[in-house]
Amino acid sequence: MATITVPHPLPSPEEDAKKLRKAFQGFGTDENAIIEVLGHRTAAQRAEIARTYARLYGETLVEGLRSELSGDFLNAVILWVMDPAERDAELANKALKNKGDWHIWDIWHIWVIIEVACASDPDHLMAVRKAYCSRFSSSLEEDVASRFAHEQPLGQLLVRLVSSYRYTGEHVNEGLAQSEAEELYDAIRIPHHERVIRILSTRNKSQLKSTFNHYKQHYGKAIDEDIESSGSSQFTSMLKVAVRCIGSPEKHFAEVVRSSVLGLGTDEDSLTRAIVSRAEIDMKQIKEEYKNRYNTTLNADVIGDTSGDYKNFLLTLVGSADP
Amino acid sequence: MATITVPHPLPSPEEDAKKLRKAFQGFGTDENAIIEVLGHRTAAQRAEIARTYARLYGETLVEGLRSELSGDFLNAVILWVMDPAERDAELANKALKNKGDWHIWDIWHIWVIIEVACASDPDHLMAVRKAYCSRFSSSLEEDVASRFAHEQPLGQLLVRLVSSYRYTGEHVNEGLAQSEAEELYDAIRIPHHERVIRILSTRNKSQLKSTFNHYKQHYGKAIDEDIESSGSSQFTSMLKVAVRCIGSPEKHFAEVVRSSVLGLGTDEDSLTRAIVSRAEIDMKQIKEEYKNRYNTTLNADVIGDTSGDYKNFLLTLVGSADP
Repeated sequence: MATITVPHPLPSPEEDAKKLRKAFQGFGTDENAIIEVLGHRTAAQRAEIARTYARLYGETLVEGLRSELSGDFLNAVILWVMDPAERDAELANKALKNKGDWHIWDIWHIWVIIEVACASDPDHLMAVRKAYCSRFSSSLEEDVASRFAHEQPLGQLLVRLVSSYRYTGEHVNEGLAQSEAEELYDAIRIPHHERVIRILSTRNKSQLKSTFNHYKQHYGKAIDEDIESSGSSQFTSMLKVAVRCIGSPEKHFAEVVRSSVLGLGTDEDSLTRAIVSRAEIDMKQIKEEYKNRYNTTLNADVIGDTSGDYKNFLLTLVGSADP
Repeated sequence: MATITVPHPLPSPEEDAKKLRKAFQGFGTDENAIIEVLGHRTAAQRAEIARTYARLYGETLVEGLRSELSGDFLNAVILWVMDPAERDAELANKALKNKGDWHIWDIWHIWVIIEVACASDPDHLMAVRKAYCSRFSSSLEEDVASRFAHEQPLGQLLVRLVSSYRYTGEHVNEGLAQSEAEELYDAIRIPHHERVIRILSTRNKSQLKSTFNHYKQHYGKAIDEDIESSGSSQFTSMLKVAVRCIGSPEKHFAEVVRSSVLGLGTDEDSLTRAIVSRAEIDMKQIKEEYKNRYNTTLNADVIGDTSGDYKNFLLTLVGSADP
């Protein structure tokens, strides 16, 4: 469930656009007004406001925001006003173009690829792939395949996940779930990468959730934990993320937020990505998971690790402290 | 270029629907009228006629056709009035559900999978995947992956091809084309399947055509011929089909038609598929290729191997004997 709130009655797109324009003008910027408007509108409403703003003032809303805001606050607001498919295409491209050797901490950059592929619905992924082609003159799977050409089977896993278009019905074949739970159990141990990749990248999500349930019942251990204990390669690590994003995305995103605030300094890019991407999808479940797992609230961690308008904006998106 | 012709002025969808209804009624069926109407309308026009027919007569056009026609003529007309994406989804599913061991002659059934994946534009392939999920409660790549789970690397090749969404721009990186031509040359010989699959399933078509040109220039042999001489496995055979469907689909479809009429009896399914699928795309080029390659015309072979209304219908779709 979403955590953003929309006022009733809803101001018209013209009123919102005017309020934003006013917030940009004069001496200083009225950040609170920007948060008040944009932080309380759905993706469709934000798109309508952006169209209206451009029509009224001859500059895009993003140009207006860029001229007035800066830093993490700007980055978060820009991602928030982008069309969700365009935003994911942008985030995926940024992760792929992050040059240099991959160290253990770099691996977080790959998470976004798996999130886009596994934690959203198939039509959204298709829209992301279209947006990616339009923006970057190459396909998403092409850039993933080139980037990881020499890192197999990780590259194959990622390419197959971003290329998927899963059936979205509820149809589950219990017999198949049982036999593929066994297949996964063996494949993780041997390891038979092709089998694991085939099952995770092609089966529909209801089917896979049933497979994961059979796994836990039969082997007494959740598949993601079992994968974790089976090895520490990048492949195993990403396999675990894929299983989480498919079966229980709230667990994965709670971990993204938690990792971003732990340790020295904050990983604002990851924190922003998790909150902006999920505020309209399942932030309520993420906050519940966060509370159960870390004995603190997501809101408390955001307050502790961020400040100023950036903090206010994120808190607006995640809603009240009580999940 | 297409070979079907549309009359000017064009009758309204109501007139066409009425003419079809009349053709279905009374003593005997007026097959010529059916061919006259449907054989001279574009996909969009046929869809409009079907909608109008259903609205006017309370039965679908397909139901009307099924009650009056039979055999190869019926099959061809049904495929022709289907939405092209639905048609390809149907053809792919039929090929995948063709049970039994794969013998050398069965391999033709797989061609359709590669045709759908490589010989049409990326948005069409996406539409086929959507239609496939709606009709069959599973995804195209899921059924391909399951069907070929134990036939690697063929399964991987097919899954990656049907999952592709290629960039459609004209942008070509000549340096990359040169280096990937070399990579393909080595990969075909070693063989490094993953490399071949990565290049063929992710690069855009303009890029691949340039790569194939570099290949021919540098090694003095077209890549499809080189693949053919490198082995006779199902994988090599399908790799050749993929290269053809990407680089010069008219060569592939000329071969489909020629294979379907050669030998004892005719493979009507393949003949119908090739003509119905390509009549609005590149049948003109296919006929030219046919003439150059086989020293006879496609029309002459259709006349020699088919008869009756089925023959008349196919000849209407392929147009005049002179390519």
